[in-house]
Amino acid sequence: MTDLRIQVVERAQLAMMLEVAAFPKPGNVDRCHDYPDTTIEHFLASAILARPALEEAAAGKGRIGEIIKHAVRDTNTHGGGNTHFGAFILLIPLVYGKDIAGALEAITHTESSDAVAFYKAFAMTAVRMPAGDDLDVNDPHTLTLIRERDMNLLDIMQHSAANDMVAREWVNGFSLTRRGADLLKELGPGRASIVRTFLTLLATEPDTFIIKKHGLGVAQETMMAARDVLDGRRTVEDLDGECICRGINPGSIADILIAALYIAMGEGWSWES
Amino acid sequence: MTDLRIQVVERAQLAMMLEVAAFPKPGNVDRCHDYPDTTIEHFLASAILARPALEEAAAGKGRIGEIIKHAVRDTNTHGGGNTHFGAFILLIPLVYGKDIAGALEAITHTESSDAVAFYKAFAMTAVRMPAGDDLDVNDPHTLTLIRERDMNLLDIMQHSAANDMVAREWVNGFSLTRRGADLLKELGPGRASIVRTFLTLLATEPDTFIIKKHGLGVAQETMMAARDVLDGRRTVEDLDGECICRGINPGSIADILIAALYIAMGEGWSWES
Repeated sequence: MTDLRIQVVERAQLAMMLEVAAFPKPGNVDRCHDYPDTTIEHFLASAILARPALEEAAAGKGRIGEIIKHAVRDTNTHGGGNTHFGAFILLIPLVYGKDIAGALEAITHTESSDAVAFYKAFAMTAVRMPAGDDLDVNDPHTLTLIRERDMNLLDIMQHSAANDMVAREWVNGFSLTRRGADLLKELGPGRASIVRTFLTLLATEPDTFIIKKHGLGVAQETMMAARDVLDGRRTVEDLDGECICRGINPGSIADILIAALYIAMGEGWSWES
Repeated sequence: MTDLRIQVVERAQLAMMLEVAAFPKPGNVDRCHDYPDTTIEHFLASAILARPALEEAAAGKGRIGEIIKHAVRDTNTHGGGNTHFGAFILLIPLVYGKDIAGALEAITHTESSDAVAFYKAFAMTAVRMPAGDDLDVNDPHTLTLIRERDMNLLDIMQHSAANDMVAREWVNGFSLTRRGADLLKELGPGRASIVRTFLTLLATEPDTFIIKKHGLGVAQETMMAARDVLDGRRTVEDLDGECICRGINPGSIADILIAALYIAMGEGWSWES
């Protein structure tokens, strides 16, 4: 493995670490608090244990769906539940292709075997799916459907894009990832920029992880609350407290922030202030 | 690289992560606070960036002194100063030999080239040496002396053992590491056991990192204060506050705790409670 490949892998791991260490991030596990069954150690362990899958991706060989499955398998060894499934959906193609352009190229080459592997990875997690999806991860018939329709992994993401902002990144050219990276660079180096970027993304679009758990109304409320924090009408600590109390965790925005950190660091942004 | 070797490497990385995430650890960087120039992110980045050197060690080939130098080089890329030099002095032989017995065997095979590489690594850090040491890391003549006297790395550790409890582990059979691992296993799984083990080690022997910075008196005071916390005469938060305020950070006990976590996990102890 060349030095460049190691750099790409380590940048992805640092992105995962920096996201969870940044605080306060309203509603999510951060340096200031855990959830009862998922602690900061679970996220940090996952960042460490993802290395072999990220190295596989950095080699730019192998199948993206299979590599996502390996990442989930290797990081599911702890009892903290799914920590980085959404992040892997973004990071694996980004590491595979090195940057957004490379990722967009790589995902067009996925096949139905990638889609099948991805669904197997999905089944290892406890991530929610919207009711009534005809490609339900819990239905054994889904894998047959995928093969019959000859859907590749990009088709699957297209299928999921309406209800899942992480899948949407695959079909919209990683636009929120790009926006997050640009924000980080505008805001300058350091931890405060990570928190500000998180809040800005949160104020930009309703988090689909919140929608699946609490409905669109709550997700839109959270968006507006993040806007209030950005505009100084409310403290971030106050919003954090409310989110934790109500079980509102913007998990998909966190996944996109990880991808944004990965891209920004590749373009010279530094986490050290 | 076999699975077993990856497991050993990841266990070392998890040990580094768990030590810094555990809180409150009186006086040290932990989840609750940073130092002005060294933050939790610096320690966590170092745990990620140490992987190639740990893999080199796990392969059980190559020279231990050189591998320690690689670990320092690869983790010195951030601006947080020395984070894990002491931890590497313990982890590299432990990972090389897989356990304490293997490490003790491996260190007997070090040569003067290991000692020279180690001194070069030492020079990359800002770690203090006691005044008047005839093997001063800042004296270019030291490398010549090491070669003339044909000292291997174990000889160097023997030379440093009186003033450095990390070096002492090499010559006393990793006795505090062993004690820390046994304590973790006695106390049971989870984060609370990490903090309790830290306090117990702190109450056991004066931390030589504190001695170098503040003198023996302060180190002994800290020992007794840790004993007060263990016996319920004082809260850990109170001791933490005092240590931070006075700049007392028990860095060598933290290094030994990392080695203890590595050993304990290899013997079945789990960080998940």
